[in-house]
Amino acid sequence: MPQTSSLLTDPLLLSREWTERYDNVRHQTLKLVETLTPEDQMVQSMPEASPAKWHIAHTTWFFETFILVPHLRGYAPFDARFSFLFNSYYKQLGGHPHRTLRSTFSRPSLDQIRLYRTRVDNAMHELLGRGLSAELLRLLELGLNHEQQHQELIVTDIKHAFWMNPLRPSYQPSQMRAVESGASTIAPLTWCRFDEGVYKAGHNKAGHTMRGFAFDNELPRHETYIKPFSIASRLVTNQEYLAFVDNGGYRRTELWLSDAWDHVCANGWTAPLYWERAGDTWVQFTCKGVVPLNPAEPVCHVSFYEADAFARWAGARLPTELEWEIAADSVRDSAKKTDNLLERENFHPAPTQQMSSGQMSLQQIFGDTWEWTSSPYTAYPGYHTPAGAEGEYNGKFMCNQMVLRGGSCVTPESHIRTTYRNFFPPQMRWQFSGIRLAHDCT
Amino acid sequence: MPQTSSLLTDPLLLSREWTERYDNVRHQTLKLVETLTPEDQMVQSMPEASPAKWHIAHTTWFFETFILVPHLRGYAPFDARFSFLFNSYYKQLGGHPHRTLRSTFSRPSLDQIRLYRTRVDNAMHELLGRGLSAELLRLLELGLNHEQQHQELIVTDIKHAFWMNPLRPSYQPSQMRAVESGASTIAPLTWCRFDEGVYKAGHNKAGHTMRGFAFDNELPRHETYIKPFSIASRLVTNQEYLAFVDNGGYRRTELWLSDAWDHVCANGWTAPLYWERAGDTWVQFTCKGVVPLNPAEPVCHVSFYEADAFARWAGARLPTELEWEIAADSVRDSAKKTDNLLERENFHPAPTQQMSSGQMSLQQIFGDTWEWTSSPYTAYPGYHTPAGAEGEYNGKFMCNQMVLRGGSCVTPESHIRTTYRNFFPPQMRWQFSGIRLAHDCT
Amino acid sequence: MPQTSSLLTDPLLLSREWTERYDNVRHQTLKLVETLTPEDQMVQSMPEASPAKWHIAHTTWFFETFILVPHLRGYAPFDARFSFLFNSYYKQLGGHPHRTLRSTFSRPSLDQIRLYRTRVDNAMHELLGRGLSAELLRLLELGLNHEQQHQELIVTDIKHAFWMNPLRPSYQPSQMRAVESGASTIAPLTWCRFDEGVYKAGHNKAGHTMRGFAFDNELPRHETYIKPFSIASRLVTNQEYLAFVDNGGYRRTELWLSDAWDHVCANGWTAPLYWERAGDTWVQFTCKGVVPLNPAEPVCHVSFYEADAFARWAGARLPTELEWEIAADSVRDSAKKTDNLLERENFHPAPTQQMSSGQMSLQQIFGDTWEWTSSPYTAYPGYHTPAGAEGEYNGKFMCNQMVLRGGSCVTPESHIRTTYRNFFPPQMRWQFSGIRLAHDCT
Amino acid sequence: MPQTSSLLTDPLLLSREWTERYDNVRHQTLKLVETLTPEDQMVQSMPEASPAKWHIAHTTWFFETFILVPHLRGYAPFDARFSFLFNSYYKQLGGHPHRTLRSTFSRPSLDQIRLYRTRVDNAMHELLGRGLSAELLRLLELGLNHEQQHQELIVTDIKHAFWMNPLRPSYQPSQMRAVESGASTIAPLTWCRFDEGVYKAGHNKAGHTMRGFAFDNELPRHETYIKPFSIASRLVTNQEYLAFVDNGGYRRTELWLSDAWDHVCANGWTAPLYWERAGDTWVQFTCKGVVPLNPAEPVCHVSFYEADAFARWAGARLPTELEWEIAADSVRDSAKKTDNLLERENFHPAPTQQMSSGQMSLQQIFGDTWEWTSSPYTAYPGYHTPAGAEGEYNGKFMCNQMVLRGGSCVTPESHIRTTYRNFFPPQMRWQFSGIRLAHDCT
Repeated sequence: MPQTSSLLTDPLLLSREWTERYDNVRHQTLKLVETLTPEDQMVQSMPEASPAKWHIAHTTWFFETFILVPHLRGYAPFDARFSFLFNSYYKQLGGHPHRTLRSTFSRPSLDQIRLYRTRVDNAMHELLGRGLSAELLRLLELGLNHEQQHQELIVTDIKHAFWMNPLRPSYQPSQMRAVESGASTIAPLTWCRFDEGVYKAGHNKAGHTMRGFAFDNELPRHETYIKPFSIASRLVTNQEYLAFVDNGGYRRTELWLSDAWDHVCANGWTAPLYWERAGDTWVQFTCKGVVPLNPAEPVCHVSFYEADAFARWAGARLPTELEWEIAADSVRDSAKKTDNLLERENFHPAPTQQMSSGQMSLQQIFGDTWEWTSSPYTAYPGYHTPAGAEGEYNGKFMCNQMVLRGGSCVTPESHIRTTYRNFFPPQMRWQFSGIRLAHDCT
Repeated sequence: MPQTSSLLTDPLLLSREWTERYDNVRHQTLKLVETLTPEDQMVQSMPEASPAKWHIAHTTWFFETFILVPHLRGYAPFDARFSFLFNSYYKQLGGHPHRTLRSTFSRPSLDQIRLYRTRVDNAMHELLGRGLSAELLRLLELGLNHEQQHQELIVTDIKHAFWMNPLRPSYQPSQMRAVESGASTIAPLTWCRFDEGVYKAGHNKAGHTMRGFAFDNELPRHETYIKPFSIASRLVTNQEYLAFVDNGGYRRTELWLSDAWDHVCANGWTAPLYWERAGDTWVQFTCKGVVPLNPAEPVCHVSFYEADAFARWAGARLPTELEWEIAADSVRDSAKKTDNLLERENFHPAPTQQMSSGQMSLQQIFGDTWEWTSSPYTAYPGYHTPAGAEGEYNGKFMCNQMVLRGGSCVTPESHIRTTYRNFFPPQMRWQFSGIRLAHDCT
Repeated sequence: MPQTSSLLTDPLLLSREWTERYDNVRHQTLKLVETLTPEDQMVQSMPEASPAKWHIAHTTWFFETFILVPHLRGYAPFDARFSFLFNSYYKQLGGHPHRTLRSTFSRPSLDQIRLYRTRVDNAMHELLGRGLSAELLRLLELGLNHEQQHQELIVTDIKHAFWMNPLRPSYQPSQMRAVESGASTIAPLTWCRFDEGVYKAGHNKAGHTMRGFAFDNELPRHETYIKPFSIASRLVTNQEYLAFVDNGGYRRTELWLSDAWDHVCANGWTAPLYWERAGDTWVQFTCKGVVPLNPAEPVCHVSFYEADAFARWAGARLPTELEWEIAADSVRDSAKKTDNLLERENFHPAPTQQMSSGQMSLQQIFGDTWEWTSSPYTAYPGYHTPAGAEGEYNGKFMCNQMVLRGGSCVTPESHIRTTYRNFFPPQMRWQFSGIRLAHDCT
Repeated sequence: MPQTSSLLTDPLLLSREWTERYDNVRHQTLKLVETLTPEDQMVQSMPEASPAKWHIAHTTWFFETFILVPHLRGYAPFDARFSFLFNSYYKQLGGHPHRTLRSTFSRPSLDQIRLYRTRVDNAMHELLGRGLSAELLRLLELGLNHEQQHQELIVTDIKHAFWMNPLRPSYQPSQMRAVESGASTIAPLTWCRFDEGVYKAGHNKAGHTMRGFAFDNELPRHETYIKPFSIASRLVTNQEYLAFVDNGGYRRTELWLSDAWDHVCANGWTAPLYWERAGDTWVQFTCKGVVPLNPAEPVCHVSFYEADAFARWAGARLPTELEWEIAADSVRDSAKKTDNLLERENFHPAPTQQMSSGQMSLQQIFGDTWEWTSSPYTAYPGYHTPAGAEGEYNGKFMCNQMVLRGGSCVTPESHIRTTYRNFFPPQMRWQFSGIRLAHDCT
């Protein structure tokens, strides 16, 4: 594992280890599009989503732009025009196409893009074979983590794309791992209390590679004063959310933030994304197609607006991101990890029921669904945006977005950690986002 | 030719002839997408355009919906869901996807759609082999003409799609017929005068198949009183249009209709679509990629707004659609047909220079570019919208659109005639649309 | 009357007569705002409408700009900034505020604007006292007719403004002439037939003042070939329109033009503007407040879209503008004029019931409601847009608008004539616009 | 002063004191509109602003709705329809007009609204004369503070309204206090350092009236852990901001948040609101009309986006709202109050230059301009939204808004305090909002 590799001093071993890790991550991306046709990989079903093909090209562009061009002497870009074409939003790199146009890029063909990938992979092998400077290692980790973020987006975006198609195709052939029946008991929701005091939060690495990777926005580690609070042992279930729906939750203005209510009215929301009425019952669209709503599974594809309104209805609130982190830090890794993450065997891109285990501690901290927090995405005290285009990665989005924590069923296992800060605008819900409740204590 | 076939009384011959015509038209469609990849055929670069794949499916849907289902006993639809999926806008058929979603239909795959085509073609063969009733013949002609309209749209839409792509791919490999050099003299523009009086216009068929096909909107043939007018012998050239541009045409408010001026300002128009400045000169994007602007060629891809402003600047006006028709009727077929239409050998999807021929009569009546007229698209006196979904074909668009006449370089030769009425909103310019001038006489 | 005055040769009499006419028109404008407070005169309830105060200023601006500044030597504009401020849309005069900003012009105050009016009126008196050149007379007539158009708009705009106010104030105090009870019989609808042939239409004046005023768009008089048609003897009533509503007219897609259907769906139209459900019955907002819908009165405040759909539902069609004019020309003035126009005593700004008179000829040709025709607003053959800013008056709107004929209950009587062409976009309905049916004959 | 009144136990004195305070606040509101005509008070120059007349009515509605109707037995509402008409956004009270319609309410007239005010004031006197329960006192303070907020909005909104008017009227006649010349030296900017540690922030009242009023969103007082920081001794000046503008600040993408950059590009921002180029220099629109930009005055009318970009350009950052509060708490009241607030003699609605005083402590904490902080507006730990419509006052806006602190030159002096939290969306700049810098310390 890279986390331990940093202790090694043998440059050759280090090279090999990182080359292997590079190959693993790059291979994982291609595995995710195995079941997709070239046509599927063209679809952009809304401006916020991107075609799978674009994700494959853009992640490759990242390595070429930030590593190969500046660090591999003599490297000639695969196609000079890709520098513009597959730039997502880095203004300091000179320009990029409007994001809504990504679905129009039939050329370069998928075949060409795969050649591009191969060419870049070969060059990366060559570069890595020459040894890793600290700077190169830093960029490499950034590039791999960047690619892992796009792995998650590939699944969320294709799920949305297939849902927009009246034929409702399946991303995963159904002979793959079956959805468990919801017959078994739902784990009871218990509350884990945390005392008042000064806690530390944020990533504690001194240097990038010594203690594992973190994005700049997880830094620096810092003290925070926390009032006593309790946090729910598990995620909110479909059954619990359904009670909110049935109680007129989407029609009761007093439960919603002002912006939220306007959004609900303007968009006619009456349930989470992908839920549909089927006579008297509810079904939901999943990566395996339309299936009955399983009441025991965590509710998923809700916006911050909905998570906040549900919490208010439930007489609770969402945790702040630092409450969440303190809670997550309090349990051992063994306890907090579900097996429901990307990179696991039998990858299953849907949240799953938390089995009743008799255990009272926090469950489902990682995987299943991202968890909306009540925290707007802002800089930690002492945070500094890096210079140059790299600085556009995280810092420039610190406005009008909310933090989510914990990863989802489509987050790579090696990508997530307790300090990880994901962020999306409060109205978005095509991510695998769910709800964990909290409340004040006295 | 179908026009003559109606005189035949042998049902077997009639069947054969129409089957052959059916095959020709259907084959022509596929020829137009030969150079396109499945990915290319997914692209929808603006709401008004459609993916090539959708055109291929929708034209097939037309035969299945209007002919096979009602007329071929025992015919089972290829896929029941296509009835909704590939409906364009026929409200009376129950519903259709929003047109902006056509680019998201990666499924059915292009392979599936080709199977759909084959299946429908086979069923059509079977049906045609059983003999043609008058009603079937009427629908068959409608279906074939419908498909020919989409042939033109396939080219206009893919041209736009490729233009939106920063790589600027070519629809036609450049080894095909070369663009002629503009070195030769531009034919002089002369004026053809027509006297005042009552003229007849509109299609004169008694029944549909006796005298050749016409759309309902070309009917009935009727008298019209025309003041003396002159019409230009040829289309306006790039060179002439460039003089308008260079004279500040796009900045002189007095030249434009009120709506036009608002549109010019809001969209920052400074030249026709596909024109681009390259230093001191102009280039234009064509089906063969970006080429220098040929001053001798007809100006193309202008909106009605631009055509109208240009005419005003030139001290002339656009012809009315009936003036155009009277003029077109006045010349022999041999004179009025350029060789620049679809279905010609060496198909060349761009308007071409009118060679100086010493001839003073009307040139370029057919082909090259559609010609904007000053006539809003409305019903002829005595026109009645057909009952049922068929009635949605033409009649319901008779508002806020302008009539174009004469076909373009991408109009099938067997599809165009003097009475043919094309129509588009006044601001659109992705069609191959150009300008012929007219003026009042005393 | 000005129409006869032109025969007079005594310049002094001419001056007096036109001064009197000027005063009458100017006075009529002020009478229309008598019941309005300065605050009322500030309201602009939608972008297409204007505050009454603005109308009062703009009509004054018209005389100052087109007559006083160029023709009265030594005239100093009342306020140099008004030249920009009260320009409506004349681009060639240098610029104007965006029309949506008119409601923000609290300064100049209404008092200032009345001073502006007085100052301009005095200067006009001075100018007219010096004698009238043909050019001055032409501009004077234009200015007066322009002001009369704004008289109508003052009423339509304040009606809309008051309707937007939840308090629903009345423009006319209710002690004024009462709305007639609808108890009496509705005049039966009969059809007036016109034979096929060449007719003349358009205004026939040789010079402007010899035969009465006409706008440029009514010129030139010209021949037109008309197929036999019949036109309804009276306007469509609320009762007849209600049958369309009750028959699901607003939900039957087959009755509507494509643009119309989109508009109906997007705006949720279910009835004419100002109609409202009140339990089981309908009421309508009028200049006297909310009153029960009178079934015998002409339907009013419908768009072209609705007029067209109603006609289709009724198995008829709208007349073309030239059919309308031919019909209107066929009846004597005494027959065609209702008493329901502006400038009549007991001005009543609402259409009134056509009393059953035993007469079979055309009724309600003038007044009551404008009548939508099926004709897009375009140039007559031989029409030329005048040079300069004056040319922006009519010609530049000849796109995407439909012609209405006949004037309404808020059109000044001295302003309307059979050749008069009003025009509005097909979706607008805040004008007093109604429906007269027509159909083809054989 | 109310703050001391709470110590009094004599109910009669308490009644008198609060009646006097009520009268003072209500009177202050009317003073602000003294120079405005009824027409001026109708103007709504953008959706976010409201007409002065509406502010006058709405503040009265607040007392009627929340105090008189529930607490004064036998009180009959002035006009039952006002309950709907002058509701701003309280959904739980049944409904309100869309906010963009406020400019259309010419009725009730301003006279009527003044009668409404008088009637409500009389009833309030009657109610207050009967003695004050704790609940009534709580609501009274809320109502008065609510009215004070609208006092500030009256000035900001009329300033914007007059700026939109091409005549550029002045809110304050120019014979009033002159703008000081900027000739004197600008006070040097020094940095005030604060040590790391746990601080307390938020309002500390136990009950509402015991220790002075606070809005619910200032509660509860709570601990916060602060890293060492420095905060600027004074506001950023026009001169400093001009250096940013001249340095290409508005064109350098790397200085802006992502949303900010999009907003700058979409709206063509090149300077603060109300700044305009006049040849080589800058002028700005003020309540006294257009004046030269005074380099010594605080920059004003910038958005959060601009404040954030400026801070980045300056190598600093904005303070968090709690850093700001800690800093403000650290100086004596005498030091932190400028004399530039509403309710001061010679009210001057513009920020003024901070005179060089030799003092190194914090200046301009209150008044002059609101100070953007880097803190999104969220709930303090332990905050609970009050039940009922009152709960809509503050809590429901805790999304996508940023906190501003310290009040401005148009904030009533008795209204502001160190714990006061104002909030606006990050793009808004018509408020008197400026910049104070901060930076991290080690």
